[in-house]
This record gives sequence, structure tokens and C-alpha cells, in this order.
Amino acid sequence: AADTLKQEDFVGISFWIISMALVASTAFFFLERDRVSPKWKTSLTVSGLVTLVAAVHYFYMRDVWVATGSTPTVFRYIDWLITVPLLMIEFYLILSAIAKVPTGVFWRLMIGTLVMLIGGYVGEAGYVAVWPAFIVGMIGWFYILYEIFAGEASKINAASAPPSVQSAFNTMRLIVTFGWAIYPIGYFFGYLTGAGPESSANALNIIYNAADVLNKIAFGLIIWSVAVAETERSG
Amino acid sequence: AADTLKQEDFVGISFWIISMALVASTAFFFLERDRVSPKWKTSLTVSGLVTLVAAVHYFYMRDVWVATGSTPTVFRYIDWLITVPLLMIEFYLILSAIAKVPTGVFWRLMIGTLVMLIGGYVGEAGYVAVWPAFIVGMIGWFYILYEIFAGEASKINAASAPPSVQSAFNTMRLIVTFGWAIYPIGYFFGYLTGAGPESSANALNIIYNAADVLNKIAFGLIIWSVAVAETERSG
Ligand SMILES: CC1=C(/C=C/C(C)=C/C=C/C(C)=C/C=O)C(C)(C)CCC1
Ligand SMILES: CC1=C(/C=C/C(C)=C/C=C/C(C)=C/C=O)C(C)(C)CCC1
Repeated sequence: AADTLKQEDFVGISFWIISMALVASTAFFFLERDRVSPKWKTSLTVSGLVTLVAAVHYFYMRDVWVATGSTPTVFRYIDWLITVPLLMIEFYLILSAIAKVPTGVFWRLMIGTLVMLIGGYVGEAGYVAVWPAFIVGMIGWFYILYEIFAGEASKINAASAPPSVQSAFNTMRLIVTFGWAIYPIGYFFGYLTGAGPESSANALNIIYNAADVLNKIAFGLIIWSVAVAETERSG
Repeated sequence: AADTLKQEDFVGISFWIISMALVASTAFFFLERDRVSPKWKTSLTVSGLVTLVAAVHYFYMRDVWVATGSTPTVFRYIDWLITVPLLMIEFYLILSAIAKVPTGVFWRLMIGTLVMLIGGYVGEAGYVAVWPAFIVGMIGWFYILYEIFAGEASKINAASAPPSVQSAFNTMRLIVTFGWAIYPIGYFFGYLTGAGPESSANALNIIYNAADVLNKIAFGLIIWSVAVAETERSG
């Protein structure tokens, strides 16, 4: 009874809502793959994997939160280490559905991801001073942004994608820019203003949870909608 | 609370990441089987079985690790006794998708597997001295390598496989050579240098966990990609 969700625990409520939204999204993506043409199916599979992995982690984080009123950041990083590479694979797959994409694009996106996440982790876990770790993480993220806005991935899109794919690619880029920006902002207020992460644990968790709805569920929905549109256009 | 994952417990973190990666891989293989032609479907089913069985064992090992800081090797052998034969079946199936394969190939791969695993187990469990047990295990493994590099399985591949299958077969062989080598190396450092397995429990678990990503997930992905390529080529 001590660890039942309280009516006034808004962070706990947000954990509950999002865990269920992730379960529903997973079912949605997995079921809907049978109405898109084969070349789009893997994209929907991967969208569902992102929400599946996140759902399991959210159920866990929700229980830890309700039981203890805090939730270790380590679980978010474990989640990110699996889901962010999957999101990068989505960029690769969406381009592969329309053109032949060199695997270098894929590896560069992966390297950017690893630099970003490992940089952030060693900072949060205290292995490296928080500022240098943050800067390394930011470099990884900027490298991803460079690749999708100005690098090879962006050129393939501009050269050969039909309008619906271009518009999806465009929205995905905006999510990686603005949706993802929420996490380093959280890190900044948690560690770099001198306040310390405990004092902002409530706010941070609500913000991260909302960010995940955008970056995981909305991101997947964009891919679903372009897959449906392209299937209807050309089979 | 005593048994929640700690931020600095990298072995525990690796158990977490891999358990989730195995769940995601299982969903992936099971879902993607509907986009390959019938003769490739069983290969994807079996890839998913390998990761499914491993996922269950990993969730269990992860909890034991987080609660006690050690995880009995017996669970890994239980896992191997199911997953290694399944991986051998994969070799048989990939050849069967392109040619008529005598069942002798299958049985020889199975016998090699059993000699390898039973040899290793009786050594680790202390029923037989560690050195002779190790040598018996190595003989089993070399026998598998012989079969896939120079024996009948390799000849069938060379004689009748299309390029995409030959290249997948080749990568699978390299995994059985280099990816699998990690386990006897672990046994060697655990038992044959005189140090005793407790002193290297951390390192060994991280190494085995990473090896499993390669030998279970990457192995399955190779099969998935040849199945997709062959389906697109010839239906
Ligand atoms: C730049 C930067 C960060 C960015 C993290 C991001 C961008 C995480 C994205 C997670 C997503 C998108 C999950 C969705 O499934 C850190 C590590 C917080 C701190 C270091 C600097
Ligand atoms: C040679 C040898 C070993 C090899 C074990 C191997 C190769 C296990 C492979 C497991 C896999 C591939 C699991 C993946 O699902 C032992 C038993 C450690 C010790 C005795 C000598």
C-alpha cells in the first residue's frame, strides 16, 4: 500500500500514462505493418521495437518511482542506448526504401549516437567532470545533425525522395533538433547550474517523459504515415 | 531497494541492455518472417527462438546478478545447450534453402556441439579435472569448424549457393570461429591460469555478454538479411 500511486503524484501519473501509451503504440506499429508494402515493413517493425523497449523500461522506472520517489538516470541511459540507435536506423531505412544508401551513412549516425550517450553518461555518473562530458555529448549530437541536415543522408533525400518522403524526412529532422534538445537542456539544469539533480527531480522526470512521447511515439507515427501514403501511391 | 541496479554496476548495465536487446531481436525476427519467401521463414523462426530463449535466461541472470553480484555459470550452460544446437540448425537450414542436404551433416554438427558443451560443463562443475575437460570441449568445437570449413556442409555451399548465401555462410563461419572463441578464452582465464573464476567474475560476465550479442543477435541479423535479399531477388 505504501507504494501505490498517489492522486497528487503528477510525476507518477505521467509515468503511468506514458507506459500505457508506449504499449498501445507498440501494438499499433506491429499490427499496421501488414497494410504497408514490403519495403516499408521493416520501418514499422523498428518503430514498434523502439516503443516496446521503452515500454518495458517505463514500467520498471514507474515502479521504482512510485516505490522510492526517485528514479535512477541509469535506466534512461540503458533505454537510450538501445532506442537511439534504432531511431538512427529509421533514418537509414527511410532512405533505403527510396535509394541505394552507402553503409557509411549508417555508421556515422551510430558513432554520433555513441559519442553523445557515452559523453552524457560519464558526466552524470561522475566519472568525468560534468562540463567536459557535456561538451563531448554535444559534439556527438551536432555530428548527427550535420549528417542529416548537410551530409550524405540529406543529399540522398534531396536528390531522390518523392514529396511525401521528403516531408517525413524533414519532420524527423526537426524532431532530432528540437525534441532531442530537451535532453541536454535537462542535463544543463540538472548539473550545470549548481542546483544539483535532486532539487529538480520532479520537473526533470516530467520533462523527459513528455520528450519521450514526442521522440518515440510521434517519430514512429510520422514513419507510419509516410509508409501508408507511399503504399497507397505506388503499392 | 537493496537490489536495484546501481549506476556504477557496469556488469549489471550490460545485463540490462542485452536482455532488452534480446527481447527486441525476438520481436524483430518473428515479425519480419512474413516478408520473406516461405523457404526462408523457418530460418527466421529459429533466429527468433535463439534470442527468445536467451532473453528469458538473461532476465533471470540479470536479477541474480543485481541481487547477489554473481551469477552461476550453470545458467549459461543451460542456455547454450538449447541455443547452440539451434544455431547449428541454422547452418543446416540455410543450406537446405538452396540444396538437398544429407541429414548426416546435421547430426555431425549436433555431436560436435554436445561434446563441446558437455566437456566444458564437467570441467567447470568440477566432475573432471579442468584441463582434460577443456581439451575434450575444444575437440568438439574443432570438429564443428572442420565440418563448416572443409567438410560436407562447406562443399554444398561452395557447389550450389548463390552469391548472397555464400557471403552469409562465410560470415556465419567467421562468427563460429572468432565469436565463439571468446568462450574458451573465458574458460582459459577463469580456470587454467590458476586465478580462479571469482577474481574475474566481472570481466568474464561483460565479455560473455558482449559475445552473446555477436553470436546470437548479429548471427540472426545475417540470416535475416540474406533471407530478405534472396526473397527480393527471386521471390
Ligand atoms: C546532447 C547531449 C545529450 C543528449 C541526449 C539525447 C539527445 C538523448 C535522446 C534520447 C532519445 C531521442 C530517446 C528516444 O527514444 C545528453 C546525453 C543528455 C547529455 C550530453 C549532451
Ligand atoms: C570450446 C570450449 C567451450 C566453448 C563454448 C562455446 C563455443 C559456446 C558457445 C555458445 C554460443 C555460441 C552461444 C550463443 O548462443 C567451452 C564450453 C566454454 C569450454 C570448453 C572448450
